[in-house]
Amino acid sequence: MSCRAHSARARCMCDDSPSLARARQRMNSRRTGTLWVVATPIGNLEDFSPRAQRVLREVSLIAAEDTRHSKPLLAHFGIGTPLVALHEHNEREAIAPLLARLDGGEDVALISDAGTPLISDPGYRLVRAARDAGHRVSAVPGACAA
Amino acid sequence: MSCRAHSARARCMCDDSPSLARARQRMNSRRTGTLWVVATPIGNLEDFSPRAQRVLREVSLIAAEDTRHSKPLLAHFGIGTPLVALHEHNEREAIAPLLARLDGGEDVALISDAGTPLISDPGYRLVRAARDAGHRVSAVPGACAA
Repeated sequence: MSCRAHSARARCMCDDSPSLARARQRMNSRRTGTLWVVATPIGNLEDFSPRAQRVLREVSLIAAEDTRHSKPLLAHFGIGTPLVALHEHNEREAIAPLLARLDGGEDVALISDAGTPLISDPGYRLVRAARDAGHRVSAVPGACAA
Repeated sequence: MSCRAHSARARCMCDDSPSLARARQRMNSRRTGTLWVVATPIGNLEDFSPRAQRVLREVSLIAAEDTRHSKPLLAHFGIGTPLVALHEHNEREAIAPLLARLDGGEDVALISDAGTPLISDPGYRLVRAARDAGHRVSAVPGACAA
């Protein structure tokens, strides 16, 4: 943003004013929720990375393509995080409550039945909505059918 | 293959003859060496999957893009498997001894500096040579810069 009072300066120090700093802090505190896009194993449970397991254990909620499918996998790894369904038939309706969680500073994960979400799975609308709302979207790599 | 004596049968049982079974066994015993294409972390050590670590621990030899780069990573995970360099400047010469290992029934792994080999790294000539020689080529998924 331009600053009329300091337009001649190479870098306007108004950017560091207390009011702007407070505004930034408010913005940042609004953006603490992260949407994690997490890869799960396709055929070999040993492909489930330590980070993928940790993130799924630490988030408040996991949006899963098919909760019945994902429950046994997560139970096998002792991950008891609550699950909600997010599939192509409910994605539009499911987004609002997930965004509310992110707005509240909670972390949410997105998984597909197997592999890396979004390659050929639902979820891209959620990712787009989270980004549009200014939330961080971060990926945990792993098995991928692409 | 066709069989004149049993050409009228839907499925020729000659395929199960003892001599053919022995020939198959010989073929299979020649093919016990596997070339593993293994993903390594790009920036987060927690992305190193349990299977990737186990495979790199169990193979006889690891062909690495830059052994100086990979040594500290492998040492960090307690993987003491011998390393040989396989990069774009020595790939043609490095293939023969690696194929000899596979011919002898040993397993060999291919890794790049970081991520999944072969996307933008050397190694495709080795993979092609291993496949042409009838060896199994198997991949362990993980981080990928593609």
